[in-house]
Amino acid sequence: MSGNTFGTLFTLTTFGESHGVALGGVVDGCPPGLPVTEALIQKELDRRKPGQGGPAATARKEPDAVRLLSGVFEGQTTGTPIGFVIENTDQRSRDYSKIKDIYRPGHADVTFDAKFGQRDYRGGGRSSGRETVARVAGGAIAQELLRTAGIHVQAGSIELGGIPAAGRDFGGALARPFFSADADAVAAWEDRVQQVKAEGDTVGGVVEIRASGVPAGLGEPVFDKLDARLAYALMGVGAVKAVEIGSGRQAARMLGSENNDQMTPDGSVSNNAGGILGGISSGEEIVVRVTVKPIPSIAKEQRTINSKGQAVTITVGGRHDICAIPRIVPVLRAMTLLTLADLLLLQRRMGK
Amino acid sequence: MSGNTFGTLFTLTTFGESHGVALGGVVDGCPPGLPVTEALIQKELDRRKPGQGGPAATARKEPDAVRLLSGVFEGQTTGTPIGFVIENTDQRSRDYSKIKDIYRPGHADVTFDAKFGQRDYRGGGRSSGRETVARVAGGAIAQELLRTAGIHVQAGSIELGGIPAAGRDFGGALARPFFSADADAVAAWEDRVQQVKAEGDTVGGVVEIRASGVPAGLGEPVFDKLDARLAYALMGVGAVKAVEIGSGRQAARMLGSENNDQMTPDGSVSNNAGGILGGISSGEEIVVRVTVKPIPSIAKEQRTINSKGQAVTITVGGRHDICAIPRIVPVLRAMTLLTLADLLLLQRRMGK
Amino acid sequence: MSGNTFGTLFTLTTFGESHGVALGGVVDGCPPGLPVTEALIQKELDRRKPGQGGPAATARKEPDAVRLLSGVFEGQTTGTPIGFVIENTDQRSRDYSKIKDIYRPGHADVTFDAKFGQRDYRGGGRSSGRETVARVAGGAIAQELLRTAGIHVQAGSIELGGIPAAGRDFGGALARPFFSADADAVAAWEDRVQQVKAEGDTVGGVVEIRASGVPAGLGEPVFDKLDARLAYALMGVGAVKAVEIGSGRQAARMLGSENNDQMTPDGSVSNNAGGILGGISSGEEIVVRVTVKPIPSIAKEQRTINSKGQAVTITVGGRHDICAIPRIVPVLRAMTLLTLADLLLLQRRMGK
Amino acid sequence: MSGNTFGTLFTLTTFGESHGVALGGVVDGCPPGLPVTEALIQKELDRRKPGQGGPAATARKEPDAVRLLSGVFEGQTTGTPIGFVIENTDQRSRDYSKIKDIYRPGHADVTFDAKFGQRDYRGGGRSSGRETVARVAGGAIAQELLRTAGIHVQAGSIELGGIPAAGRDFGGALARPFFSADADAVAAWEDRVQQVKAEGDTVGGVVEIRASGVPAGLGEPVFDKLDARLAYALMGVGAVKAVEIGSGRQAARMLGSENNDQMTPDGSVSNNAGGILGGISSGEEIVVRVTVKPIPSIAKEQRTINSKGQAVTITVGGRHDICAIPRIVPVLRAMTLLTLADLLLLQRRMGK
Repeated sequence: MSGNTFGTLFTLTTFGESHGVALGGVVDGCPPGLPVTEALIQKELDRRKPGQGGPAATARKEPDAVRLLSGVFEGQTTGTPIGFVIENTDQRSRDYSKIKDIYRPGHADVTFDAKFGQRDYRGGGRSSGRETVARVAGGAIAQELLRTAGIHVQAGSIELGGIPAAGRDFGGALARPFFSADADAVAAWEDRVQQVKAEGDTVGGVVEIRASGVPAGLGEPVFDKLDARLAYALMGVGAVKAVEIGSGRQAARMLGSENNDQMTPDGSVSNNAGGILGGISSGEEIVVRVTVKPIPSIAKEQRTINSKGQAVTITVGGRHDICAIPRIVPVLRAMTLLTLADLLLLQRRMGK
Repeated sequence: MSGNTFGTLFTLTTFGESHGVALGGVVDGCPPGLPVTEALIQKELDRRKPGQGGPAATARKEPDAVRLLSGVFEGQTTGTPIGFVIENTDQRSRDYSKIKDIYRPGHADVTFDAKFGQRDYRGGGRSSGRETVARVAGGAIAQELLRTAGIHVQAGSIELGGIPAAGRDFGGALARPFFSADADAVAAWEDRVQQVKAEGDTVGGVVEIRASGVPAGLGEPVFDKLDARLAYALMGVGAVKAVEIGSGRQAARMLGSENNDQMTPDGSVSNNAGGILGGISSGEEIVVRVTVKPIPSIAKEQRTINSKGQAVTITVGGRHDICAIPRIVPVLRAMTLLTLADLLLLQRRMGK
Repeated sequence: MSGNTFGTLFTLTTFGESHGVALGGVVDGCPPGLPVTEALIQKELDRRKPGQGGPAATARKEPDAVRLLSGVFEGQTTGTPIGFVIENTDQRSRDYSKIKDIYRPGHADVTFDAKFGQRDYRGGGRSSGRETVARVAGGAIAQELLRTAGIHVQAGSIELGGIPAAGRDFGGALARPFFSADADAVAAWEDRVQQVKAEGDTVGGVVEIRASGVPAGLGEPVFDKLDARLAYALMGVGAVKAVEIGSGRQAARMLGSENNDQMTPDGSVSNNAGGILGGISSGEEIVVRVTVKPIPSIAKEQRTINSKGQAVTITVGGRHDICAIPRIVPVLRAMTLLTLADLLLLQRRMGK
Repeated sequence: MSGNTFGTLFTLTTFGESHGVALGGVVDGCPPGLPVTEALIQKELDRRKPGQGGPAATARKEPDAVRLLSGVFEGQTTGTPIGFVIENTDQRSRDYSKIKDIYRPGHADVTFDAKFGQRDYRGGGRSSGRETVARVAGGAIAQELLRTAGIHVQAGSIELGGIPAAGRDFGGALARPFFSADADAVAAWEDRVQQVKAEGDTVGGVVEIRASGVPAGLGEPVFDKLDARLAYALMGVGAVKAVEIGSGRQAARMLGSENNDQMTPDGSVSNNAGGILGGISSGEEIVVRVTVKPIPSIAKEQRTINSKGQAVTITVGGRHDICAIPRIVPVLRAMTLLTLADLLLLQRRMGK
């Protein structure tokens, strides 16, 4: 209830700072009998490693090796909580004086201090994107549960630096630079990243997530609608500024006759609902889009304040990403997996 | 945990179907000593009444009279749960055979049946927009708590039927047709509604919500970020297809240097963050935008299926709204009030 | 999370003060298709009515008529929240000045004031035993769910005023004075009550609850053990001072070889575990005992303090019970039903 | 919600099996600025180590060295989740064939299999008392929070093997064998343990917990009463069969005039309420008693069944405790600390 546990029945509790001893988590409520191994989780973690997803990524190297501590016996989940840790191996001493007392624009420095009266300022601490490693590990376990129900989740980037992708091939996305949903978009995106990097600036983008095989009936009216839970899950990832379901932002400009998905015995003729009606999955593909803001750490000089409220300027150097897109895609996918796993178990209470 | 309770410390549990005996709710966790009366709640309920907000509204007349049952003594909250009911007075016998076995496109008929194996089909039952009356009542109580903390929430429509409003005057919005944030937009919107109505169609729009006076520090990293909780709260309102924070959807096309809000001793020079950094309020104004889809009940003939999965056509007549905008504005405002009240109480655990 | 919602999946939220407008509640998470009617709930409510259960009961007459507001359609639950109210009809004007500013010994007057800074002092307000009417209504609905799973809960008093009952016939308990588990104990208990009443004093007792047909597997290690959840549920009823499972308090004096229930292919040879091992139901009968303190409202003069902290004396007259036993039995039974219903739904997530 | 997270605002999530890789937990919601170190937690862990508390303890040696992974920076809590692990160092290969397929009487073997369809049978797995190491670690952190509020919790054994202690000196209990509340009782208890051990049997006992300095106002009516939460917390510890508050089991035999605590300006003249009225702390000392059953692992031959349901006999040898008392005292104390810390933070929402 203090913000570090996600879910109702299939829950993930996470902990860890970017430069602390370790990050990790506990998955509780996972049914027994699922094949879960360190290798299976590691495979997902490797996708969000620095260096994956093309030239937008930072040079920082973290092995991010996961270690399972409990809840798995003889290669299968037992139904008891699954504890795991990822040690922080790259904690070499550094000079943090620049951000210890100066609030970086677009960062959580100022708000963590306001909330807690203090913070672990090394590399962002708990507000670092590094926190998401535990989400990805939890999502890998959720994926095994969903697999038994025939549910599959794909994700890919569809816009970067203002350049939209034309195609939608989510099946191949995880193998492409930027986890792009369109192979043809990659070259332009790489150019854009190099150009912006040279300017000491950063870019944002858009990620789309698709879930297929979701049975009709997931989602709890009225507050825990499937779309509400997805919006909560995805907006809770750092850097996300918008969440859209199906026709999303476009729905404001459509007529009812355009936006309605007429139905036939063979399925809906369109999917503006994004697979969700009244907050409950309809059996159609779930479609969600997420807007990712540009990385706030830029090399350009910016005006800001220090912890005494005085005006200063800051230039954030270091080995930072130009775009969050490649690294955030596995995280958004993981949050979708966790959300669906939870709602799947909730629906089972119906006894069907 | 089954979707009808909202919040952690300041909670609202709701019940009721559109054509059942009554709708109502229970607010739990409200601190004692707040001045809460039926009149105070009624004032907010009257804003979402049919007939408010201009020509887009339905002709159905519901007094929506709230009755307080508990938790208030001698005009003040006591700290015990506040129960309330709104009786359904307009339940005259009607012919529901058309929607009993036929799934209306864009409605939750098909998914409620899939989830529960049955549904109260009269007027949408629990999936009816009428469910939101209890949210507005709960929001009115939350507002009294927030008032003591100097927090104020305003909301208004900024786009309708594809026509954006130029101005932003949220202070006057509740007094205008469509709860418009711009008096100059009203005439064009009225024309648009009349035109679409004549075509037997419906329109959507965009609502913006502003919260001022929010102290820095609200929101719980990592999963219960303020923006995540707002997204959950607002996406959980029927007809909402997108939620944006601050620069929102535009952030995808901005450079880091554009999207970052540089800070000075006098405050931020921009507010692309929408008042939230790292999921925690910064003290700046909270800015959220919500996309509302066009009403799915249209007079035009549509293809659909019945409960046996057979192809049929449907024409939804009756006294339906053309646009959800006027009636949804008080609801979105209420959900924002409930979210902030909950996070305000959560932050108090810090003992500050 | 503020104490007025019970359960995780099958939840009951209650509201209401003893002399407010109405008491009531919301059952959320109840599966669809259960036959629930006002008559069915009324039958259980009538068992806790003043006048039931013999001469220990107060003379106050409340019809306690329940009204269903939602969640039931054509005689069956729909899966949506079930709202209900019981109006307070016996609110005649009275003189509460005696307890408005004076704290009754053994009552919650002093602690409600300490917690909330104020209270609805009429008849105890929210701390009144009358609050339990909503628990009994919720339990009646839970009972319908459990019935479909073959689970039955019985309860009866086994000790009153220091006089233990020799027999154990829970099947007949609800039809006997004091809801006694032993017809032969009734006469002695009636004598005891009359004697104590004449002295202006009150008595306590012990209630035993038995649940049969509970399948093995209910209860969630480690914190949400079945026995932990039962202890929580029952200790949360006013006047309860002890909860015992199986051999209970006696286990402290037994050897391991005596307390262990040896197992055979035909079942356990004893049931000191009370049907629970490691916090999980074993398939044996669940056995729980609850100690109920004597009613604190006595006619004898007592020393106490007023709200200014000054020494005063008090004599609590009025139409009070001599023993809580008869009225508390249906309440303890209801809490057991609610607990089992919740854990039954939780176990269903296993997909079995 | 699957049983491995305790609390609402100050939460502890635990994981780990007795012979898995490690046990551990996550404390979430702990306010910032508290002095928390590994040494501070280790001190509490050492109290539940095998070998502590006199001759009733097993010979198994576990260093139980705690390692803090997050949430503490420069010696102080930061307000972010505190992750910790205790590695299992004593996992030497052993022959578990005896308990792999045979259900030990009085143990959770049979119910874990019934619930999950499988279990980690090595040394009891998740049902092992070893699970409690994470509770004690969490309790040590809770203690630091309570210390800032002037709340202190003591615990000691008051009965063992049927022999009650006459004295009550909880201040010295942690330094005595069996954590006895009475130095004079120790010799008789040691004799009793040696005698029972020679017979291949085991004994139970009673532990009393006292909390002083608890401000009036903690506890949430109606379901989350302080006594209900304590009963839940303590009954959730393995081997506990009864929980009593204040006069407890004796209340059944007392008159109202005896059980009521009359009040004076200098405090109550007795404390049969155990410091709790109407589920809310009164400011008096909190008094709770817990009955602990005899250890079910006995050397005597017992009848039982195997996983095929066939009749077999079992003799449980090995290095087992004779009485759970010494090791369970720090665990019961920890659960009380966790409960009070949670309710303390909950009460802070009142803004006082």
